[in-house]
Amino acid sequence: MARIVKKFGGTSVGDIERIKNVARLVKKECDLGNEVVVVVSARSGVTNELISRAKAINPDPEDREMDMLLVAGEQETIALTAMALHAEGIDAFSMTGAMAGIRTDPYHTRARIVSMDCEEIEKHLMEGRVVIVAGFQGVNDRGQITTLGRGGSDLSAVALAKGVNADLCQIFTDVDGVYTADPRVVPNARKIPEISYEEMLELASLGTKVMQARSVEFANNHNVTFEVRSSFNDNPGTIVKQEASSMEDVVVRGVALDRNQSKITISNIPDRPGSAAKIFQGLTDSNVVVDMIVQNIGRNGVANITFTVPRDDSSRSLQSVNKVLEELGGGEVELVENIAKLSVVGVGMRSHSGVATALFAALSEAKANIQLISTSEIKISVVIDEEGAGEATRIVHTAFGLDKEED
Amino acid sequence: MARIVKKFGGTSVGDIERIKNVARLVKKECDLGNEVVVVVSARSGVTNELISRAKAINPDPEDREMDMLLVAGEQETIALTAMALHAEGIDAFSMTGAMAGIRTDPYHTRARIVSMDCEEIEKHLMEGRVVIVAGFQGVNDRGQITTLGRGGSDLSAVALAKGVNADLCQIFTDVDGVYTADPRVVPNARKIPEISYEEMLELASLGTKVMQARSVEFANNHNVTFEVRSSFNDNPGTIVKQEASSMEDVVVRGVALDRNQSKITISNIPDRPGSAAKIFQGLTDSNVVVDMIVQNIGRNGVANITFTVPRDDSSRSLQSVNKVLEELGGGEVELVENIAKLSVVGVGMRSHSGVATALFAALSEAKANIQLISTSEIKISVVIDEEGAGEATRIVHTAFGLDKEED
Repeated sequence: MARIVKKFGGTSVGDIERIKNVARLVKKECDLGNEVVVVVSARSGVTNELISRAKAINPDPEDREMDMLLVAGEQETIALTAMALHAEGIDAFSMTGAMAGIRTDPYHTRARIVSMDCEEIEKHLMEGRVVIVAGFQGVNDRGQITTLGRGGSDLSAVALAKGVNADLCQIFTDVDGVYTADPRVVPNARKIPEISYEEMLELASLGTKVMQARSVEFANNHNVTFEVRSSFNDNPGTIVKQEASSMEDVVVRGVALDRNQSKITISNIPDRPGSAAKIFQGLTDSNVVVDMIVQNIGRNGVANITFTVPRDDSSRSLQSVNKVLEELGGGEVELVENIAKLSVVGVGMRSHSGVATALFAALSEAKANIQLISTSEIKISVVIDEEGAGEATRIVHTAFGLDKEED
Repeated sequence: MARIVKKFGGTSVGDIERIKNVARLVKKECDLGNEVVVVVSARSGVTNELISRAKAINPDPEDREMDMLLVAGEQETIALTAMALHAEGIDAFSMTGAMAGIRTDPYHTRARIVSMDCEEIEKHLMEGRVVIVAGFQGVNDRGQITTLGRGGSDLSAVALAKGVNADLCQIFTDVDGVYTADPRVVPNARKIPEISYEEMLELASLGTKVMQARSVEFANNHNVTFEVRSSFNDNPGTIVKQEASSMEDVVVRGVALDRNQSKITISNIPDRPGSAAKIFQGLTDSNVVVDMIVQNIGRNGVANITFTVPRDDSSRSLQSVNKVLEELGGGEVELVENIAKLSVVGVGMRSHSGVATALFAALSEAKANIQLISTSEIKISVVIDEEGAGEATRIVHTAFGLDKEED
């Protein structure tokens, strides 16, 4: 007998037929004699509907009331899912986040989980019931309802898996798992059977977008093994777990391509202490998240800084930088939008040399000119022209032996 | 400074504009320096939508899960109402039924309020906040969410008025108040400025349908004065309160007409103890609520019983009665559907004689043949032909001096 947490996102519970499908998937697990905790999101679209109603009433709604509003979405799906399980003859019991003991800090709309109090769930599991928990929500120590922010339901699932000491946590979504590259860019991309938390984090933040980074970080911190898989087929997904030594045999786990960045270069900045700090403080104040940063100090005592920002934030970033440069009394700014960021990721890089060399060789073969390079322990990223970036990704994918085997 | 509970039904919070309207009504009260507790229902239609989704998933949903599902409706409106008040510059705080301290018995979908624990509300009121409470819902002593059944939001409002010791409880609805008769039947009907709980109960159960009887009974038991008024205009409504001696000056408060009943007559029932009991037990077992009952014992030792039932239950009632008569070994049944029940109601009847005489005279003038008569302390009801019942109601209304004064 195993204890399994199964999380179904908004698409997987999007309508009545899909909720029935979830019930059938859960029943299958029960028939195997396993204990199941189900975590569900609001039906897809519902949260956005609620937000748009709120905005129509008050353009700047209070965070606390936003939380009171949004939890209505999962409240509906937990009850409907319980009813669907009852229709399958399965004993099931729905719980709000508060009932399930998901305790958070006081911060509405972006609460962090501080502890899990799973006694109540445990009791129901012991009595042979499937427990259905509303994802995305919790309760703070003043009894107020909180929500966990974007990707909150994944976080609920991982935290519950830890809280009830589950053998496995399955994140059901509309993709089959994590791939060696985006299959729309690289038709030869393969599904990755096992991946470490760190690799998942690097791939997710680079655009794979299967899961929010915070859920993976939580799983990493608490050593929760989880599987990302599709609710629409029976294929095995990708297992995300602590790094095993065997994982190092694969040098590069995947290749990510991000076309949603812009590059900003500031040249001739007066080179005095604090110039860079002021520039990046300005960007932080404008809510711009800067990604890659490269700085060179020239001989003439002036610095050049190049960095990338989300493309949607290009003009906001320019405004912010220009304002700071005015205060500093110098510097010129250049914005380049038609770039792409290509990254190779793998824990095996730590013990293998020559990855950078192999990457540069592949890019050269693809005739891709490297504009920026940045490296971490398990990742090398380069900025190249957007034109030809797809072709470059395919060539790099092949070069690192990631293409799927011929059938 | 007064403390006022204001309850808005599903129509009054039916869309964004109406929720904004509610906020303006509440702001007006705040500007007068009054403390306000707002009770809201789910947006009209939402509860039915949720029920139909539930039934599509499970034709026989568990009561407990039904409660978990339905409370999502008010959860949305309390938050939206709070946001609308914030937009008006009013400090407001939303609360679920559980947070508001509405404690109920354990019975899901039809819970009864057992106590009110209004400390938390009191705290917010003292701090100058408007408190918005989700109607229709409460919490039982095991921390499970319950709902109060039909008309539950009115009950929440009356119970909260008692709990916070409010000076007034206002039930906002889509009608102006309680009328001396249904204005669609009697164009001369007047709005009643003040009415006793008992009169309200008799008029409501006779088809006025402004409020469910249980809320009026609760108000009566706990001596909560409330006002029924429209959320769409500024007209004063009807105050429902404990009987005052001055109320006796009006002999008849209103005339009610109910066209939704059928009459069933059973003749030649073997007159032995328990025959009637068996017949009515059978009807109870078939979930038929019997209204008027008249029994005569004939000389030949056989009894005749006539009673009325909701017209929708006619065939079910006939089936039940026929089954019992078979067991008793005798009796014939006759069903008459085209009847109407006309009632006059007023606490003044207690101290005034001649009301029945005046009613019969008016009915005679209307050429209405009386088929059945039943009386209580403050009500006389008669069954007449459905044809001409409207005209009879108008004549009775005039006869008791209820017509509105000419402008």
